[in-house]
Amino acid sequence: MTDARTVYPANRVVLREVGLRDGLQLVGSFPSTDAKRQWVREEFAAGVRHFEVGSFLPASRFPQFADVREVIAEVDALPGAHPIALVLNDRGGRDAFAAGVAEIGAVISATEAHSLANTRRSREDSLADLGRLCAMRDEASHRPIVSAAISMALGCSLTGDVDPDEVVSLAERCFEMGVDTVGIADTVGYAGPSQVHDLTNRIVRMADGHPIVVHLHDTRGMGIANASAALDAGARILDGSLGGLGGCPFAPGATGNVVFEDLVFLCESKGFVTGIDLEKLVAVRAILQREMPGEQLHGALAKAGLPKPTRMMEGKSNTAA
Amino acid sequence: MTDARTVYPANRVVLREVGLRDGLQLVGSFPSTDAKRQWVREEFAAGVRHFEVGSFLPASRFPQFADVREVIAEVDALPGAHPIALVLNDRGGRDAFAAGVAEIGAVISATEAHSLANTRRSREDSLADLGRLCAMRDEASHRPIVSAAISMALGCSLTGDVDPDEVVSLAERCFEMGVDTVGIADTVGYAGPSQVHDLTNRIVRMADGHPIVVHLHDTRGMGIANASAALDAGARILDGSLGGLGGCPFAPGATGNVVFEDLVFLCESKGFVTGIDLEKLVAVRAILQREMPGEQLHGALAKAGLPKPTRMMEGKSNTAA
Repeated sequence: MTDARTVYPANRVVLREVGLRDGLQLVGSFPSTDAKRQWVREEFAAGVRHFEVGSFLPASRFPQFADVREVIAEVDALPGAHPIALVLNDRGGRDAFAAGVAEIGAVISATEAHSLANTRRSREDSLADLGRLCAMRDEASHRPIVSAAISMALGCSLTGDVDPDEVVSLAERCFEMGVDTVGIADTVGYAGPSQVHDLTNRIVRMADGHPIVVHLHDTRGMGIANASAALDAGARILDGSLGGLGGCPFAPGATGNVVFEDLVFLCESKGFVTGIDLEKLVAVRAILQREMPGEQLHGALAKAGLPKPTRMMEGKSNTAA
Repeated sequence: MTDARTVYPANRVVLREVGLRDGLQLVGSFPSTDAKRQWVREEFAAGVRHFEVGSFLPASRFPQFADVREVIAEVDALPGAHPIALVLNDRGGRDAFAAGVAEIGAVISATEAHSLANTRRSREDSLADLGRLCAMRDEASHRPIVSAAISMALGCSLTGDVDPDEVVSLAERCFEMGVDTVGIADTVGYAGPSQVHDLTNRIVRMADGHPIVVHLHDTRGMGIANASAALDAGARILDGSLGGLGGCPFAPGATGNVVFEDLVFLCESKGFVTGIDLEKLVAVRAILQREMPGEQLHGALAKAGLPKPTRMMEGKSNTAA
């Protein structure tokens, strides 16, 4: 059995590499299975422990995730590493339980319009799916973590603004369905730091000790500022992708997920210990450059290098902001 | 006579375009005088009112600033527009007063090591220079604003960390010398948002109503997060450059000043009225692309576009954060 608070200790900042899933969701080319293994191993050596490894989707339509089981096995082979796999329907859920992955992530839309357009299901239907996933979890011998991510929680590609009250009550409903963690995602990168601070603060207080994930995109350059605001508001689990992999199909050349390297620098500068070696992390970009030469990698730190002398080595607490 | 509080009203966010000076400090190629005029006119049409136009330096060594007087004249011809010119020595100061520019900016290093290495003068010598500039101002008929920018205030390329106590007392000394405004600059982009928040808060409280400028670089991707922290700490005057022009010679490909367009988006998202039309501002980048094809322009908003519907049009106050 996997305990959510062991994987995501309270007051410890956890940075999750989501490049292997969200970063590859929309790309034309993608790394070989061996390259993904190397990506995981080298980031593990740099100190990364949490990896979103892929989705359980039809390999015919999503070949980039056909090897999700191999990547899960690679993460499972590393002591203290934690794999997360996404499921979008019952079949994917059954496959994920069969694969024995330690964390299964589901997605629910913040707005009814996006839920219907994106999944042809209402938010109530999605909540019912979450309930079934949690029931399967409770019957499963390995008892994985089941997490729900609320997409478009800070802005919707269809409705624009999103009512934070609706997001908070949707998060409450997710916990009522029995999920172990809830995430709020700025899927299209609409938010600014004040909005992120306010919603994160409300969700963290509502969650009453349950782990809360904040998943941000840098589409409009606010990614790191929003991450800083989320940390100030009490978030301790943040997603990012190496080189900011994961652009937006509607905005060619747009930046993708928050750049993982810059996110580490932000956390360390705020006094949070990430346990991640930035020099080693930046070096892993070479795998992406080799495997995905057509993809533009983002990130300022990789270009500029660390300040000298680096502040990384100085006295830090794990909780100070 | 130019009153600092008329040019920089308290509690009104002022975003200053410094691309014409800081953005051109280190470039190989630079826009023609006519292109600079067009740059100023089009940004003015987009709502920008404050322009750092150049430096009074020997044209032989800094040809990009040889036309500083023409750019000042262009700004002066626009109703409500405000030009700022940099001076680095007494001769430049005399030239600036003779040119009648409305604001004269001087620079002083936060650390003695950088002051000696960069100007071969101690910080005390620089403070004395400031005193002379203020004396010239008091005798000048047009009585320009004299401002002091403290470079390396948040990290020094020579000493690394910088003692905030030294920066605060240096800022106090600058006001004692009679300057109208003081700026703190993260010249090499070392800072994170917590550090920026703490120093800005101390400087704003010390300044007791005098205008305080926060000048940030995005060298390590923290620019917008640092700007957000500066606003939260009470800063109301921020510098940026169109397309983030102004890279670092020690870090090839590194980002430069905070991207002006993204800075506008940040402020509006935080509820500050900038008076700047983002669509029009982004369009001005075409001038830089045409005039400086070798320079990489940064900025996420220009790539991704505004959220739809844009939040820019919604009810905002001028002071809310």
